[in-house]
Amino acid sequence: MSHTWIEDGGVTTPLGFEAGGSYAGIKKFGDAKDRKDVGLLVARKPCVATGLFTTNRVCGAPVTVSREHLAGRSARAIVVNSGCSNVAMGERGIEDARSMARAAAEHLGIEQREVLVASTGVIARPLPLDRVRQGIQAITPTREGGLAFSQAILTTDRVIKKRAVRVEVGGLSYTVGGTAKGSGMAHPNLATVLCFLTTDAPIDPDWASATLKHVADRSLNMLNIDLDTSTSDSLFWLASGEAGGTTITEAHAASRPLHDAVHALCEELTRDLARDGEGARTLIVVEVTGARSEKEARVAAHTIVSSPLVKTMVTGRDPNIGRILMAAGRSGADLSMDHVSIKVNDVLGYHAGTFVAENEKRLKAGMDAAEVQISIDLGLGTQRAMAWGCDLTDEYVHINADYTT
Amino acid sequence: MSHTWIEDGGVTTPLGFEAGGSYAGIKKFGDAKDRKDVGLLVARKPCVATGLFTTNRVCGAPVTVSREHLAGRSARAIVVNSGCSNVAMGERGIEDARSMARAAAEHLGIEQREVLVASTGVIARPLPLDRVRQGIQAITPTREGGLAFSQAILTTDRVIKKRAVRVEVGGLSYTVGGTAKGSGMAHPNLATVLCFLTTDAPIDPDWASATLKHVADRSLNMLNIDLDTSTSDSLFWLASGEAGGTTITEAHAASRPLHDAVHALCEELTRDLARDGEGARTLIVVEVTGARSEKEARVAAHTIVSSPLVKTMVTGRDPNIGRILMAAGRSGADLSMDHVSIKVNDVLGYHAGTFVAENEKRLKAGMDAAEVQISIDLGLGTQRAMAWGCDLTDEYVHINADYTT
Repeated sequence: MSHTWIEDGGVTTPLGFEAGGSYAGIKKFGDAKDRKDVGLLVARKPCVATGLFTTNRVCGAPVTVSREHLAGRSARAIVVNSGCSNVAMGERGIEDARSMARAAAEHLGIEQREVLVASTGVIARPLPLDRVRQGIQAITPTREGGLAFSQAILTTDRVIKKRAVRVEVGGLSYTVGGTAKGSGMAHPNLATVLCFLTTDAPIDPDWASATLKHVADRSLNMLNIDLDTSTSDSLFWLASGEAGGTTITEAHAASRPLHDAVHALCEELTRDLARDGEGARTLIVVEVTGARSEKEARVAAHTIVSSPLVKTMVTGRDPNIGRILMAAGRSGADLSMDHVSIKVNDVLGYHAGTFVAENEKRLKAGMDAAEVQISIDLGLGTQRAMAWGCDLTDEYVHINADYTT
Repeated sequence: MSHTWIEDGGVTTPLGFEAGGSYAGIKKFGDAKDRKDVGLLVARKPCVATGLFTTNRVCGAPVTVSREHLAGRSARAIVVNSGCSNVAMGERGIEDARSMARAAAEHLGIEQREVLVASTGVIARPLPLDRVRQGIQAITPTREGGLAFSQAILTTDRVIKKRAVRVEVGGLSYTVGGTAKGSGMAHPNLATVLCFLTTDAPIDPDWASATLKHVADRSLNMLNIDLDTSTSDSLFWLASGEAGGTTITEAHAASRPLHDAVHALCEELTRDLARDGEGARTLIVVEVTGARSEKEARVAAHTIVSSPLVKTMVTGRDPNIGRILMAAGRSGADLSMDHVSIKVNDVLGYHAGTFVAENEKRLKAGMDAAEVQISIDLGLGTQRAMAWGCDLTDEYVHINADYTT
């Protein structure tokens, strides 16, 4: 019943999806090879669709338009551009996002309402609509085009993030694919997370919405690069149903395995995003156990992974247990120093109210790694949570301070 | 009725206080000249005393002991050391903090309960009590010793922070003095804010507590260096009453002028702390106006001044209005983009839903300054708040990443 990863998988691995990408000259920078700034993802038939968006009260026009188009919980295509985020452009921004959806719809021969829109890049610049239209018209979506779509959404991400996972239940095979872009722009104004998921499982819209929210709260929403919440963050999920079988609801035999597969996929994409954070050299994974409630576990994990002093401790390769304790202490989660245990890379650093001095060398030796695991057991209950982040380096400061508008 | 600043003022400027500092070898680093690591502040007579402490659930032993000693809202002395914070040392830490209070009490010939304690420096190291005792015994408090006390509390602060302000009401002259240390340690584990206030005004304990909380919430609690909350943060206020006159309560003619003087003093110390943040080159002052409630104004101001992308925008000397808008948007304060106006150094950058493109050059020119003022009018109400912080530089990363334990 457990899921299997599919090599080189992505958004077009599930049945019924085609995609592509093109370069339309919206991004003025970057490497010429593989450079793309417009992407199209389309399904053969209308899909069950759901989405989650930034909680920032200042949000991009594409977020507003996509929210409208998702009202019927059905969609068939996603059009995306990088290089210009279409944020804070007022009524003109909304018109431009609608025009972008319309251009994609006309090119694909579908309805404008069936097209979801996402944009990422500099803000406070009008969307170059003519270029976006040219970029759309240059794309012929194919089954192999998932890679080009994943390239088109990048800004200064150093690597492409794409994954697919398969789960077999009751003689049927369901596939879930996904791609994401993270925080990192050569010309940064806002760090944005865009994530697009597909599946060929025939899922019920209510089940889809509930599953996406549950999974996102335990994966993408537990990601911290630098605390700021973008105005463009968007997560879409399209389900073609082409794997066949009956509609999956909570009671369906495939519900739990498929939920777990989506969770695994989103967690892996979250790790990919954290590892590729701006200036990051080290992935930080925080696990909080023994909390009184999942909410307290989540707030503790999120506070620890977000702490500048924890981040710079990883940058400096120094297992400063006191900083972890301090971050947990300020999180608001209930804790008592006598009950807390802290491990870094599985080596005990704090226990029963005292630092484990004899482990200092082993703790330090473990810090020189591509991934640092911080585990804190609050010792008060049974609830747990995880969070993902990265170290804070001088490169982060340079990326975000040294650019010209 | 307004207050006047006193040149070279500090904690011994108000009548009735003496102080001093000594070097006991607790701090192993720093410049030999002016280097001190033990400080004593003492009043001729018992004072009305109040304090505010870190909200971190992990707190230093000195915080626990000082809380106990403040239960009767009376105290007469403060003993402080830098170089070792006595945090997370369990029962031994508590015993050591008590011993430190006892040593100061014996040296000064007062009761142990009359002594408040504060420690700052590395954590997870036992307090070197013999050295602390030697340091205490080496101090003869004097009226001129306020400077030495201010030196003794520093860690890697680049400058001493001390101020005093005087207010005249009804023929009487009341003085308020203060000193603070901020975040910055050559051997950093936790950034700590310690702040000690004195006054010769005869204040009522209830009035003192309410005033301190009100002022701290609008000054020191609106300071952000790096988001982390220390386990040692402490703010003490001792009132000798030696200025004479009747006890000051809410109804007293001196209540408002004295409140304003304390507020001005704490705001100035907050500016001093922000300006001297770890690695800081620029003071950032955020003012939010037009909020529906003071709470919303405060959360917006605090979120903007804490935003890494706002901080690095100041580091890079680039007036990126979009980042300010983004930070306000994610703060949770009610806002509508159409009503928001943003100024940087008094130059309008955003108004009525659009960026003010014609001011781009003037905005940029103003960024090359020791202080950057960010003003955001939410346009929804009459409430306001201020917050203080500093830019995020690669020096911050180096200070907190590159050290050895």
